[in-house]
Amino acid sequence: MSKGITSRAENYSQWYNELVVKADLADNSVVRGCMVIKPYGYAIWEKMQAQLDKMFKETGHVNAYFPLFIPKSFFSREASHVEGFAKECAVVTHYRLKNSSDGKGIVVDSDARLEEELIVRPTSETIIWNTYKDWIQSYRDLPILINQWANVVRWEMRTRLFLRTAEFLWQEGHTAHADKEEALAETVKMINVYADFLEKYMAVPVIKGRKTEKERFAGALDTYSIEALMQDGKALQAGTSHFLGQNFAKAFDVKFATRQGTLDYVWATSWGVSTRLMGALIMAHSDDNGLVLPPKLAPIHVVIVPIYQKTEQLAQLAETILPLKKELESKGWTVKFDDRDTVKPGFKFAEHELKGIPVRIAIGPRDMENGTVEIARRDTLEKKVYPMNEAVERVTCLMDEIQENIFRKAKEFRKANTRQTDSYDEFKEMLEKGGFIMAHWDGTGETEERIKEETKATIRCLPLDASEETGKCLLTGKPSQRRVLFARSY
Amino acid sequence: MSKGITSRAENYSQWYNELVVKADLADNSVVRGCMVIKPYGYAIWEKMQAQLDKMFKETGHVNAYFPLFIPKSFFSREASHVEGFAKECAVVTHYRLKNSSDGKGIVVDSDARLEEELIVRPTSETIIWNTYKDWIQSYRDLPILINQWANVVRWEMRTRLFLRTAEFLWQEGHTAHADKEEALAETVKMINVYADFLEKYMAVPVIKGRKTEKERFAGALDTYSIEALMQDGKALQAGTSHFLGQNFAKAFDVKFATRQGTLDYVWATSWGVSTRLMGALIMAHSDDNGLVLPPKLAPIHVVIVPIYQKTEQLAQLAETILPLKKELESKGWTVKFDDRDTVKPGFKFAEHELKGIPVRIAIGPRDMENGTVEIARRDTLEKKVYPMNEAVERVTCLMDEIQENIFRKAKEFRKANTRQTDSYDEFKEMLEKGGFIMAHWDGTGETEERIKEETKATIRCLPLDASEETGKCLLTGKPSQRRVLFARSY
Repeated sequence: MSKGITSRAENYSQWYNELVVKADLADNSVVRGCMVIKPYGYAIWEKMQAQLDKMFKETGHVNAYFPLFIPKSFFSREASHVEGFAKECAVVTHYRLKNSSDGKGIVVDSDARLEEELIVRPTSETIIWNTYKDWIQSYRDLPILINQWANVVRWEMRTRLFLRTAEFLWQEGHTAHADKEEALAETVKMINVYADFLEKYMAVPVIKGRKTEKERFAGALDTYSIEALMQDGKALQAGTSHFLGQNFAKAFDVKFATRQGTLDYVWATSWGVSTRLMGALIMAHSDDNGLVLPPKLAPIHVVIVPIYQKTEQLAQLAETILPLKKELESKGWTVKFDDRDTVKPGFKFAEHELKGIPVRIAIGPRDMENGTVEIARRDTLEKKVYPMNEAVERVTCLMDEIQENIFRKAKEFRKANTRQTDSYDEFKEMLEKGGFIMAHWDGTGETEERIKEETKATIRCLPLDASEETGKCLLTGKPSQRRVLFARSY
Repeated sequence: MSKGITSRAENYSQWYNELVVKADLADNSVVRGCMVIKPYGYAIWEKMQAQLDKMFKETGHVNAYFPLFIPKSFFSREASHVEGFAKECAVVTHYRLKNSSDGKGIVVDSDARLEEELIVRPTSETIIWNTYKDWIQSYRDLPILINQWANVVRWEMRTRLFLRTAEFLWQEGHTAHADKEEALAETVKMINVYADFLEKYMAVPVIKGRKTEKERFAGALDTYSIEALMQDGKALQAGTSHFLGQNFAKAFDVKFATRQGTLDYVWATSWGVSTRLMGALIMAHSDDNGLVLPPKLAPIHVVIVPIYQKTEQLAQLAETILPLKKELESKGWTVKFDDRDTVKPGFKFAEHELKGIPVRIAIGPRDMENGTVEIARRDTLEKKVYPMNEAVERVTCLMDEIQENIFRKAKEFRKANTRQTDSYDEFKEMLEKGGFIMAHWDGTGETEERIKEETKATIRCLPLDASEETGKCLLTGKPSQRRVLFARSY
């Protein structure tokens, strides 16, 4: 097949959009801002979900499900939450349709107006804390460590597949604790779980850090995030974990009897990652030939392509290929035997590259004679001939090698694109190249805002591992104790 | 703990409602008709999902995700679909809120009115077939075998936890085929998958059959269902599979180039089961002491309760219990060691019975001396003392025994409550006792409707395995070729 994708150099943004559609990951739907996640894209998301779910359960969490709809008034309960969240939402006002009087269609039944409008959840803190009120009486009921896999809706004006869509899929953890320290520890634990997932499974290196006050979640006292660097030099916030203090407990009057017999408000955290991770995965590794997937999240690990002229040869090749397929499957790999006779091998190769299948094995009549196979790896596009009896071992090694190699490559890219400066002019020049910039900041919202207005760069986070280093703010020259991470971002 | 559940004999409906709440399965939310699925209930649903998903994949299906919202006009496209579906729906009319002018809350921003209202999906045939239009050009693109796990909303007036809620979780399969026979075969295949799941995993026997024209899915040419009998003698429709013919392809203009080079409309099926299965599971097996769960779907298989007077003894018991727990876990069982020191063993026993944990092991100081354990099974409430070194094997056997026993019990119950009659008067008497009634019917909608009006009984299905038997319609005396299944239902 001809891939016909715009190259990254030509137009990165177009490359991304075309890749998502042509690799059969997702597509825009007829409903503004809502995407269709196609089977191949969904298979990757399922792998992400399964691994994240395992990690959540290993850290003591359980799943539950709360309503899609939230009464409008709930959003006004927590003052800063309403400012940040309740504006661009899908609003349900009616619960019935009826035949139109001209008999030609259906119309909203004006008699079926809801007394109070319902909001399609943009996030579930309010409905969940309203429920926790009934579940929590004493310290014995704590902690509550719940996660929810769900769809949420935020009426974004400008949308992009996976990165920013009106409806998206995510998980949202909502935990309740008897004391502040435990809630803080949970907040940090979960940002670490996310970082582990991105680095070990997605092969995407991340910077963990705290958000500035301005960039915090609406209603949080502290927000931790992980920031990844995309190939175009833009940062992508890949996950957040929020310390909510007692804000939602106060808003929904959730008190508990402490061990000491007093009454106190419950401490809260929330944390989430979404189908946006798909965007991060695609943009971190893929190239002008298509997707590059880490083996740990690839729906298909190996594709086997028979090379033949005549149909009779296919049957012969299958006699060798099917046992090989079976043996690879017994090692835990998902294998596809691409025996389509409607397209040529070259077309197949291009298609498998486009879809990011980590390893391709080609076997032709000459291989049969020689007892060999040709093995190609997707990340480097290298191909080499091996003795057939080494194929299974080679594939197994390659999976580790590819997983490590794309992680290493992403780390090197980030290293090469992380800069440091103390000059505002140099800062602006650096921004044009893209990448992360570590610079001093005076800690004020005014400075942060001015830098953003003037350069479109935001403070991505205050990295947790930033060393103490006295310096002067890039813009104002006021004193600073450590550098913060700036970048333009998605 | 005191269970305090109403008995089934006293009030079956109240027993059910109380059990769902007290066993921590689900609860009503503040949003009318929407439930909160609590962690224990959700853990059972996750087990159901995992098994069903496996069975769908084994039969060649893949998952995908389509938008939550459907443009209103889509429902008018398929004439019978609009009649059956698009009426009691949640309607999104606006996409923004704003601060109220009095500054005291938020109101819907009347400037942000959608041009066309969006319906929260009650089922997804319309949006999916509108998408398939872009995916299908030729017979090479067929079949499409897609499933979606999703939430859906139907604005039901009278709701009951799991059985009928405004929002519920489900899966909906939507397949597209090049010919009628293949689509028909798919429809039957999936009703068989559902029947297998209910019988082998949920231990709920079902009758497979076809729905009458009146009871068909809106837009289907044929609907297959599985019908289960609950302990109060009412039928519950547990799953449906629809042969949609070319109706949706015609409504959304989905044509394909056939192998012969002509153009034809695509053939369709859809099929679904929902969180309603949770209701079926609960009502089929549970008793006045609480839930009875089939081991194959139980989130916790074994609970171990230490019996002791003094706290020192607990540490000693733990030395025996922890290795036992580990060994049971190595066999694949999920084991809970209930070492709470805040409640007595009797309270724990009652709680574990309420929650339907299949096997309970109690170990006290005397057991330690004698090298024994007491093993109790939830289905029969029998308990017996075994040598400690037989415990693991005994538990493993018990899991099979319990799974089989509750299935056998449910089948016997159904057998005892399936009756046959040729007299309308006797039919009415039988209905008062509850249960399934096999009777002759003349095949007309008028008769079906009159019987329903007069007796509240509906034709649940035309059982697939009904033998040919000439007879006379119960009501009209007109000729009939086979008996159909009547019952009052949920």
